[in-house]
Amino acid sequence: MKKVKAEISKKLEELGLKIWKQIERGENPVIEIPIRSLSNVIFDEKSKSLVLGEKVAKRYFFHVAHAKKFMQTLLVASFCKELVDQNLHTSLRDLFYALKRTLPNSKENTFDEQRESDPIVVDLEVILNVLREQLHLNADVRGRVVGDVVIEDRGDTIDWSKLGSGGWAIPSNVEDIEFKKVRAKYILVVEKNAAFERLHEDKFWKKNKAILLTTQGQAARGARRLIQRLSTEFDLPVYVFTDADSYGWYIYSVIKYGSMSLAHISDRLGTPSAKFIGLTISDIDKYNLHNWTIKAKEVDIKRAKELMRYEWFKHPKWQKELKLMIKRKIKAELEALSGKGLKFVTETYLPTKIKEQDFLP
Amino acid sequence: MKKVKAEISKKLEELGLKIWKQIERGENPVIEIPIRSLSNVIFDEKSKSLVLGEKVAKRYFFHVAHAKKFMQTLLVASFCKELVDQNLHTSLRDLFYALKRTLPNSKENTFDEQRESDPIVVDLEVILNVLREQLHLNADVRGRVVGDVVIEDRGDTIDWSKLGSGGWAIPSNVEDIEFKKVRAKYILVVEKNAAFERLHEDKFWKKNKAILLTTQGQAARGARRLIQRLSTEFDLPVYVFTDADSYGWYIYSVIKYGSMSLAHISDRLGTPSAKFIGLTISDIDKYNLHNWTIKAKEVDIKRAKELMRYEWFKHPKWQKELKLMIKRKIKAELEALSGKGLKFVTETYLPTKIKEQDFLP
Repeated sequence: MKKVKAEISKKLEELGLKIWKQIERGENPVIEIPIRSLSNVIFDEKSKSLVLGEKVAKRYFFHVAHAKKFMQTLLVASFCKELVDQNLHTSLRDLFYALKRTLPNSKENTFDEQRESDPIVVDLEVILNVLREQLHLNADVRGRVVGDVVIEDRGDTIDWSKLGSGGWAIPSNVEDIEFKKVRAKYILVVEKNAAFERLHEDKFWKKNKAILLTTQGQAARGARRLIQRLSTEFDLPVYVFTDADSYGWYIYSVIKYGSMSLAHISDRLGTPSAKFIGLTISDIDKYNLHNWTIKAKEVDIKRAKELMRYEWFKHPKWQKELKLMIKRKIKAELEALSGKGLKFVTETYLPTKIKEQDFLP
Repeated sequence: MKKVKAEISKKLEELGLKIWKQIERGENPVIEIPIRSLSNVIFDEKSKSLVLGEKVAKRYFFHVAHAKKFMQTLLVASFCKELVDQNLHTSLRDLFYALKRTLPNSKENTFDEQRESDPIVVDLEVILNVLREQLHLNADVRGRVVGDVVIEDRGDTIDWSKLGSGGWAIPSNVEDIEFKKVRAKYILVVEKNAAFERLHEDKFWKKNKAILLTTQGQAARGARRLIQRLSTEFDLPVYVFTDADSYGWYIYSVIKYGSMSLAHISDRLGTPSAKFIGLTISDIDKYNLHNWTIKAKEVDIKRAKELMRYEWFKHPKWQKELKLMIKRKIKAELEALSGKGLKFVTETYLPTKIKEQDFLP
């Protein structure tokens, strides 16, 4: 990992050197930035992920509309170089406060609000082709994991099978984690913490040799990166388990293909091999869950119609589920399975699904 | 802890037996429930916490307006008895699904929505004088902790000092945790995860012999109970560290005194000895943070005025801070300290505060 740090530091230095040389040559200093707007987001059939197209914008120093952003880009880059070199980590909010000041002899602030500095960080990710975590900027933190896995993190050896009911809190930054032992046949990713606790109490992961992970809603970057690292480094299948509604299904698609707003790093956050284990609308029939469905709201239906148009939901099986949801105007939560008894999910639903390989792509 | 389980099971059984006897005597079955509305919430000067007054309501079986709630109360009580006896835990959402059904020969559902079953659970807490966690109903989960502490949970021995950057994820239910080793001089409770990560990276807890805990916003029940257990069982001071605004200060007051909606269990969730370490509006002057304050919004000011009227914010020191905030119309976040350098919080702010015992009551 020290090698990575040195590389990142070098990339930042090269960005500075490039501009320095432009100045020496008497040119108008310029930074090239791949465009991140939706018009440049493509679903790449080959890599099965959302990626950026080839459109590039130029940010000039001598340009009334660019000058401030140019300055901001260099301020953020310089701050990140310090973080990496001093081996300190911090948050986007901290970065904003640390860089916010009034320019000498002016009333102009470097940054007035965090929504000015956040996109600059993403710009840097794209410019340098690095992850924000590699710039030592931590993301939101959410998610827990248990399983027969031993890792090393900051010099501590941590056994995920021996963390009681709490499990290991997934940090925002999992770049530096080393896997010492990974004994698992697959990774089960659960949207909701309540379902995770139920499965954990029933020792599902132990009985089924699984790694059990909850994202606690939309997956944070740390969780997505951890799923990807475990899956690719140990060749583990990933099964994602969410509510049967447009939001749950979108959570799945973000884990699998990446998200539109972070399309430039899908290759490092997405897990294209992930499969969807449930819930589906068809499950409601197959497992007789009719008593526990919920009426879908107008906004759910609207979102389902949007999903139907996304390239990555075009598979006939997904189109079928989305159509079913729109037609019947229903949805179902993971907790609906508790209607059949608290242990139904552990003893019947998941084992059946896995045995029959009854997944959606 | 087995003893507690047996007691809870017995309390539930006694509730049933009491009603059984009323039926045998030919009486109209009735359950007595302490009233939980704000009119019956009192700030108790002696115990320094929000508690319920003495008003009690009666819920009758033969009463058009009560019959359904009476039935629901017994359904929930019976379900909880099964949970406790079978040693299963679950969530409020699961309970709702598990109990939702259509009554035979009718179109009447036991419960139509979760907002019908949730208050029944709180009723049961009040009736039996138990915690929802003791009925095996898990609450929302949020919060992380590190420190020189070893616990036992579900047969696992967990060392909070050896969990890498993630820390231990505080589960929703900490009733069954046993503390094996607790080496700490105080507990530092931090509102925000970003500040927690910063302090953790700087090994603040190690250098200062502290237990470091983040609530990640408003403290979940598991975190509040854990703070209380650690503080009372090991006689540890608790210092709470939040943003300088009405929301941060209210988070502090809930940890200390309990909340209005859960006044019936303040004695088991509150930590009256807790002290407030910062941020205050006065800190902005003392530590020269003027460059990094935020303009308070109308809603912040309104909330501050509400706090001024609460009994438990009547202390002159708090009144002074609230007045300052309202007068200057500013607030400040924990991250504002990063304006003075990323290590300012670890190396200057917190050590100074603790050395000078510069706390708010």
